[in-house]
Amino acid sequence: MTKSISNRGQAQPASPMRRLEAPYLKMKNVRSRIYPLNIGQPDIETPAVYMDVYRNFPDPTIKYGPSGGLPEYRKTLSTYYENCGISLTPDEILVTTGGSEAIIFVFAAITDPGDEVIVPEPFYANYNGFANMVGARIVPVTSRAETGYALPPIREVEEKISPRTRAVMICNPGNPTGYAYTEEEIEMLKALCLKHDIFLVSDEVYREFVYDGTHHSILSKPGFDDHGIIVDSLSKRFSLCGARLGQVASRNKDVMDAILKMGQARLCPPTVEQYAAMEVHKLGQDYFDKIRSEYQKRRDTVFDGLMEIDGVFCKKPRGAFYIQAKLPVKNTVEFAHWLLTEFELDNETVLVAPGNGFYATKDIGFDEIRIAYIIESRQLAKAMRILKEGLRAYPGQP
Amino acid sequence: MTKSISNRGQAQPASPMRRLEAPYLKMKNVRSRIYPLNIGQPDIETPAVYMDVYRNFPDPTIKYGPSGGLPEYRKTLSTYYENCGISLTPDEILVTTGGSEAIIFVFAAITDPGDEVIVPEPFYANYNGFANMVGARIVPVTSRAETGYALPPIREVEEKISPRTRAVMICNPGNPTGYAYTEEEIEMLKALCLKHDIFLVSDEVYREFVYDGTHHSILSKPGFDDHGIIVDSLSKRFSLCGARLGQVASRNKDVMDAILKMGQARLCPPTVEQYAAMEVHKLGQDYFDKIRSEYQKRRDTVFDGLMEIDGVFCKKPRGAFYIQAKLPVKNTVEFAHWLLTEFELDNETVLVAPGNGFYATKDIGFDEIRIAYIIESRQLAKAMRILKEGLRAYPGQP
Repeated sequence: MTKSISNRGQAQPASPMRRLEAPYLKMKNVRSRIYPLNIGQPDIETPAVYMDVYRNFPDPTIKYGPSGGLPEYRKTLSTYYENCGISLTPDEILVTTGGSEAIIFVFAAITDPGDEVIVPEPFYANYNGFANMVGARIVPVTSRAETGYALPPIREVEEKISPRTRAVMICNPGNPTGYAYTEEEIEMLKALCLKHDIFLVSDEVYREFVYDGTHHSILSKPGFDDHGIIVDSLSKRFSLCGARLGQVASRNKDVMDAILKMGQARLCPPTVEQYAAMEVHKLGQDYFDKIRSEYQKRRDTVFDGLMEIDGVFCKKPRGAFYIQAKLPVKNTVEFAHWLLTEFELDNETVLVAPGNGFYATKDIGFDEIRIAYIIESRQLAKAMRILKEGLRAYPGQP
Repeated sequence: MTKSISNRGQAQPASPMRRLEAPYLKMKNVRSRIYPLNIGQPDIETPAVYMDVYRNFPDPTIKYGPSGGLPEYRKTLSTYYENCGISLTPDEILVTTGGSEAIIFVFAAITDPGDEVIVPEPFYANYNGFANMVGARIVPVTSRAETGYALPPIREVEEKISPRTRAVMICNPGNPTGYAYTEEEIEMLKALCLKHDIFLVSDEVYREFVYDGTHHSILSKPGFDDHGIIVDSLSKRFSLCGARLGQVASRNKDVMDAILKMGQARLCPPTVEQYAAMEVHKLGQDYFDKIRSEYQKRRDTVFDGLMEIDGVFCKKPRGAFYIQAKLPVKNTVEFAHWLLTEFELDNETVLVAPGNGFYATKDIGFDEIRIAYIIESRQLAKAMRILKEGLRAYPGQP
């Protein structure tokens, strides 16, 4: 007898970023090199001060920490936000096990099963997975490649609001789009959420990665308190993907109380990591400036490379480390698989994420891919040449 | 305007183990010593080999690992289970961020919102919190202090089964009861779950902590595959509470597929910790024997101490590192608070967990406390003397 699982369990979506993992592992042994542009794993080294804490951790026992995070670390984070122009007390910040847990906790705190969260698509596909886990539903509102994936006209967002809508959620700057919302767009979203008394959840894990102009947080200006929630992560900012540290920040006491109780249930985020994270936050603006200029160079390399390919369309994104681009093919799921398993240039090829996985609306995004520019510019230039030659050689689907 | 949160968010329960945290932090500066018997944080040192991996971690970047855990670590865990007499392939094991995440994933994989999981009470209170997060409901079946919190008569368990029941869940050996299920009880539970086609979820994080007789896992005998799920953790076994490593194990492919997808959504468990965890699993039986004999001594100290107090009732528990005891007071919530904030012996006192927090049935367990014997025997003996004197001096509630 095969015991059947829940509907929710059956509906749990696979990650589109990891969809090509199996053929990738196979082809790794065949090709001399595969440029991994499918996952946002930066190659930047973790700051040495972080590793030093690991090396010198004095406590002989790795104990539970407080459920909301070490108090001194929460103070560190409060100072960090202050330096970003976002005024938050340590009590308005809770440490989570990665940005992932922050989103799960927020969804559980603000939705009941069946409730809806409106998200501009294409969006970070794992939002679907988190929503499904807690029985909530993502309602997409489609943004367009032609505008660089700017916020859709605000009335299109408003039209999606139903009695079950509990929040609008954005990723700013955006994964997979690289789009950085303007101050005007943020103000429109805040006004909309206040008008309809729903939350505005902002995923700001790429806050430091804005190359032209500045980043606009939903909580940087006064007058928007109870309705705003930031989810955040150290993974990209400090190249700490495997450390699993993030945080949720809000001035809404009920939200923070509910999330602290969820945090108590799961006991605590990793302990040693928090001590180490205090050190990386002392690095200051120089650290970010250096990394930002490195990523800006990479973005320019990828964008320039894409512009040299016939039939490719994308606008130059201002932030994060992704470009969502339209390719002159019908189905990038097939194309990405073909590129990985059948094409090669100098016995090298490229792994990209098919774009449709970032859309919740069925049957769109099939002509798009997401490129994560998380390797150095010279390699990226080669990867773009491989993509160009691959598109030229692609026989297409029958 | 105060933005209201979800019903689920409002219903999220606080942890009974951490309920006295605020007065504890206050009294810490007043008393020369407070014996912390409220939380299962062992004082045993983390194995040195674990810390050595931290100290010598070679990779300059702390990267994402695979969502299901490092393949070589899953092989290590497979060998570990083999040594415990539980045959599981690496594919039947997924690494989670602590046992907590394992339980959240299992609840999400086997329940839809509104579904029920039957759990013998008193039980680890955080099961309530995990269930609430995903919209599931814990249905208690009451076990009795008089039997040492043995499995209630199986027909009492069966009577709780409704069309919404998706699983029976046990903690074996039990937190907070210390009860270790007999082979006969495990067989009865398995037969019941097969009969009604529901899952049997077994929290076996205290597997090594059985002092008299042996541990009986739900997956050690053949013939019970698709319906069995083990949730597990390194926290207690290797004194790694703050590392946040656990695992879920099942031979049910659908369960594992759904949980892997949830794992993909949250990306990965902590990376460095998994490399270090491979080393502690090489320690072998000697390591556990030594720790087990230390905890057995502690159990005997606490039990003997309790037996010397007039009006206290408990049976000698066979496992874990907890004793759930009946005290001759009406309300242990009040008593535990009084003991912490008003009583002292040599300016020392004791922090215990009120027992009612481990019951889902209303208004029971108010005459019980849970003691975690996670400090050395000499201190435990003193703590029991303080409890004895405290009970003698307690004015009771008006």
